[in-house]
Amino acid sequence: MNEDRNCQWRVARRPDGNVVAEDFQYTEEDIPRPGDGEFLLKTYYINLAPVMRMYMSGIAAAGETPLAIGDVIHGRAVAEVIASKHPDYEVGDYVQGQCGWQTYKVSRGTKQEKFRKLPDIGCSYSVALGSLGMTGFSAYFGLIDCGRPKKGDVVVVSGAAGGVGTHVVQIAKLLGCRVIGIAGGAAKCQLIKSLGCDVAIDYKDGDIAEHIEAACPDGIDLYFDNVGGETLQVCLENLAMHSRIVLCGSISEYLLDEPFGLTNYTRLRRTNSTMQGFFIYNHSDDFDRAERDMAAWLKSGRLRPAEHIFDGFENLPAALASLYDGSNHGIALVRIRRGPYDNRQQENR
Amino acid sequence: MNEDRNCQWRVARRPDGNVVAEDFQYTEEDIPRPGDGEFLLKTYYINLAPVMRMYMSGIAAAGETPLAIGDVIHGRAVAEVIASKHPDYEVGDYVQGQCGWQTYKVSRGTKQEKFRKLPDIGCSYSVALGSLGMTGFSAYFGLIDCGRPKKGDVVVVSGAAGGVGTHVVQIAKLLGCRVIGIAGGAAKCQLIKSLGCDVAIDYKDGDIAEHIEAACPDGIDLYFDNVGGETLQVCLENLAMHSRIVLCGSISEYLLDEPFGLTNYTRLRRTNSTMQGFFIYNHSDDFDRAERDMAAWLKSGRLRPAEHIFDGFENLPAALASLYDGSNHGIALVRIRRGPYDNRQQENR
Repeated sequence: MNEDRNCQWRVARRPDGNVVAEDFQYTEEDIPRPGDGEFLLKTYYINLAPVMRMYMSGIAAAGETPLAIGDVIHGRAVAEVIASKHPDYEVGDYVQGQCGWQTYKVSRGTKQEKFRKLPDIGCSYSVALGSLGMTGFSAYFGLIDCGRPKKGDVVVVSGAAGGVGTHVVQIAKLLGCRVIGIAGGAAKCQLIKSLGCDVAIDYKDGDIAEHIEAACPDGIDLYFDNVGGETLQVCLENLAMHSRIVLCGSISEYLLDEPFGLTNYTRLRRTNSTMQGFFIYNHSDDFDRAERDMAAWLKSGRLRPAEHIFDGFENLPAALASLYDGSNHGIALVRIRRGPYDNRQQENR
Repeated sequence: MNEDRNCQWRVARRPDGNVVAEDFQYTEEDIPRPGDGEFLLKTYYINLAPVMRMYMSGIAAAGETPLAIGDVIHGRAVAEVIASKHPDYEVGDYVQGQCGWQTYKVSRGTKQEKFRKLPDIGCSYSVALGSLGMTGFSAYFGLIDCGRPKKGDVVVVSGAAGGVGTHVVQIAKLLGCRVIGIAGGAAKCQLIKSLGCDVAIDYKDGDIAEHIEAACPDGIDLYFDNVGGETLQVCLENLAMHSRIVLCGSISEYLLDEPFGLTNYTRLRRTNSTMQGFFIYNHSDDFDRAERDMAAWLKSGRLRPAEHIFDGFENLPAALASLYDGSNHGIALVRIRRGPYDNRQQENR
């Protein structure tokens, strides 16, 4: 990475299957200068998410515009304001928002970029891509506002070792629930147990229906669904009275040739249960509340971000590819530079 | 029908396809006498419902026990207490509950029979099988408690000409909603318009997706689902923000060889919408409230029961068969005898 230039990753071609090096184009240009009403951002961390392959495929997703060949790839980032001619942004402010895969950006602070200033809570600003960003907020609003957990509820979380899932597990435990996490493989199951899961189910080991029935003999009060498909179908067969299903993601369905058909949705009837979807930006009026609560939990040590950090701007393409092989856990992000409170030596935790 | 005997219809054999005369056995026995803790009921009206074919097939459904060959067929009824050695039931009381297809019954008033005394609201006691019974209560709790309609909401109702549907249409109008009803054929569409539908969609005429989009340009706030299947799928594509889907029935799926697979349930996400099921007896603690509200609406004339009355105990089998040909509308019931306030001359209204 050249510190004196704006380094960028662009779409070279549409991916076919998982992303490979040839799908990306590396470019450099002069660091842009802010005009009136603009400010200049210097990037510290860039978020990694499965949806990025959809961006590269030219699909409009997660509220972002479709990308053409040659465009800088979309990516939410943590960045510092290093020059400003904008009344609302001062030099030294840190923000999270849409910066794209580049090391500098000039912005007018548009609604589409969704910039949000970061509070200083005494820990690495990478948390703005996890607990204090859209990933953590998805866990917060999905679980609390949509799922309405009560103390003692039996909460099942799929994709429990992922960015959203690791937060849902911990928040549900904070709220006094009994938490059953579902993840793939022994290492991920160990991770989610260390985060507080009462039971960790390895969906690659045996029959998931039997595991769920054994873990929830009195039924499920709240199912936080990150995967869709068969796991959702199994949970629908095991609902307690007045249970809630929260639809957050359906990663198990993305690679199917035929759309998945949910045949047992009528199971919601006998138990007066609800299935609710949510989109994180529908909750933007309440982001301050989530930030306040999550920050307090972080400071007290009751919430521990599970981060999977890749180092170096040049490694963005390979880091994205690794998301699709199932080995990733927690919040995946690429560190471009060390920011405040970022003294961590160990990588890939 | 022999007034001096207890006349009964029993299961002669398991139905194959629609019910036919040979599936039923007619029997007579002495009118039973109540012992200590028992009371004797005389039947006036018997409810007709599609689920009765499931009873005859030996399937446990709607909370009733499976029937053996030779058993009296299950059926909810309105009946008068004509003798009693039970402290809670007096001669002259009218009740609704599980009497079966017979003209008299001795009972101990068990929980399974779900007896409920009828208020005298100055109109035919047949309303206890409609507005003041489980059909009307299903409309009431599904729409109001689960659907939470607000004044001005766009409410879509499928199966709108049926027993539940005709009530949902009228209650939604009472609450100030804009109501789009879906029914099969011109006659049913005329009926639901006469009950207050702002738009009546004939699902047999043209493309239902186009009809729904045209009728709900700003999306659906509340979809009351009596049919499931394709209609549910279409409504999921047309949700407004924070909309509610209430799952009451899925009659369109009952006759499919393969279970219906709902492929677009994730549409609940973008609009933060919910899909809720309910089972009427989960609301039994609140039946008094529903009865009070529905009775007030009936007395004031704001709610008009749409009844489809078949006359005569001997006609029960043929009346049940007619349910499955799609010609029935509103509450289907068989009148065994005329009860209080039942001066109606016209049948099959």
